[in-house]
Amino acid sequence: MALIPPAVERLAAEFGRLPGIGPKTAQRLTFHCMATTPESTQRLAAALAHLHAGVRPCSRCFFIAEGDLCAVCLNPSRDSSVMCVVEEPLDVLAVERSGEFGGVYHVLGGALSPIDGVGPDELRIDALERRLDEGEVREVVIATDPDVEGEATAHYLGDRLASRGIVVSRLAHGLPAGADLQYADEVTVARAFAGRRSL
Amino acid sequence: MALIPPAVERLAAEFGRLPGIGPKTAQRLTFHCMATTPESTQRLAAALAHLHAGVRPCSRCFFIAEGDLCAVCLNPSRDSSVMCVVEEPLDVLAVERSGEFGGVYHVLGGALSPIDGVGPDELRIDALERRLDEGEVREVVIATDPDVEGEATAHYLGDRLASRGIVVSRLAHGLPAGADLQYADEVTVARAFAGRRSL
Repeated sequence: MALIPPAVERLAAEFGRLPGIGPKTAQRLTFHCMATTPESTQRLAAALAHLHAGVRPCSRCFFIAEGDLCAVCLNPSRDSSVMCVVEEPLDVLAVERSGEFGGVYHVLGGALSPIDGVGPDELRIDALERRLDEGEVREVVIATDPDVEGEATAHYLGDRLASRGIVVSRLAHGLPAGADLQYADEVTVARAFAGRRSL
Repeated sequence: MALIPPAVERLAAEFGRLPGIGPKTAQRLTFHCMATTPESTQRLAAALAHLHAGVRPCSRCFFIAEGDLCAVCLNPSRDSSVMCVVEEPLDVLAVERSGEFGGVYHVLGGALSPIDGVGPDELRIDALERRLDEGEVREVVIATDPDVEGEATAHYLGDRLASRGIVVSRLAHGLPAGADLQYADEVTVARAFAGRRSL
């Protein structure tokens, strides 16, 4: 007879499938749920069960939306002539938190990664081009991650959009705010030099 | 209009109530659930929803059980004359993993902590004494955590059980296996000295 009832093993296994949650953490979360009130566990279960029913990708920018379009695309005060291209929906929240951008978004759904089988056709680049074909966008800011895949994606997009006669830029690279120069890695310092500005 | 749909905010809030999961991790888990298939999110929801229906504390030792008694209490090959007293159900798993104990358990449900309002009446000490009253247990091994609350609980139990004429012991303190002496904290080293054994 197993030491742990199957219902408990099952929940631990499901928790363990979430990103960044190893077997020990999954077990700890499971035992927490058992120790807490059934009501609070049911609230989490219900929130999960209702997630996909009410939420879907925005049909225009692929950020998350309740209806057809997301809150950004529905907002008439956003500047639809400037578009920020990001990899994932969470990246939209990071840009919004900065308060520096008042335009619209396009979520690619990832970054180019030949080793993982992600080519241009796996990303939402065709949809991006269809939006640009409408002629309203005059500037595209590429905000893919500053890693190998994000860089490759930015360069690929830069080449592919070059002939359109619109401004295509890339977020600056350099030292992150609050960082210590002596602990910065060499690539970051090299990019900070390359992107230096006169005072 | 909120940037994030309410169903998404709600799930992030529920994830954030779990121990060790901060707001950023809760958001990341939520967006992972949105990006994954509805089926896998539903599996986690169902595992949570069914947890409390099938699982309850063992009526004898308060470890987790499917029916009235847990797998340890139901196992006739366990030595019911030796009892290990732990704080939480997860501690039972830690002792079982060691393979060093073949007796039965008693889960207190916490440790004495006056600052948190946890006194002897908040722990399952009355139930422990009723089990000892049955006369079968000849040795009690106290395996509360090696922290302030666990120590206080161990000493309290030692005093309270002293008049019963049974052996009451406490798990040894000392250097953990695989540790580096130079990185050990001073309390651990002091306890390792106090508990030193002749070779």
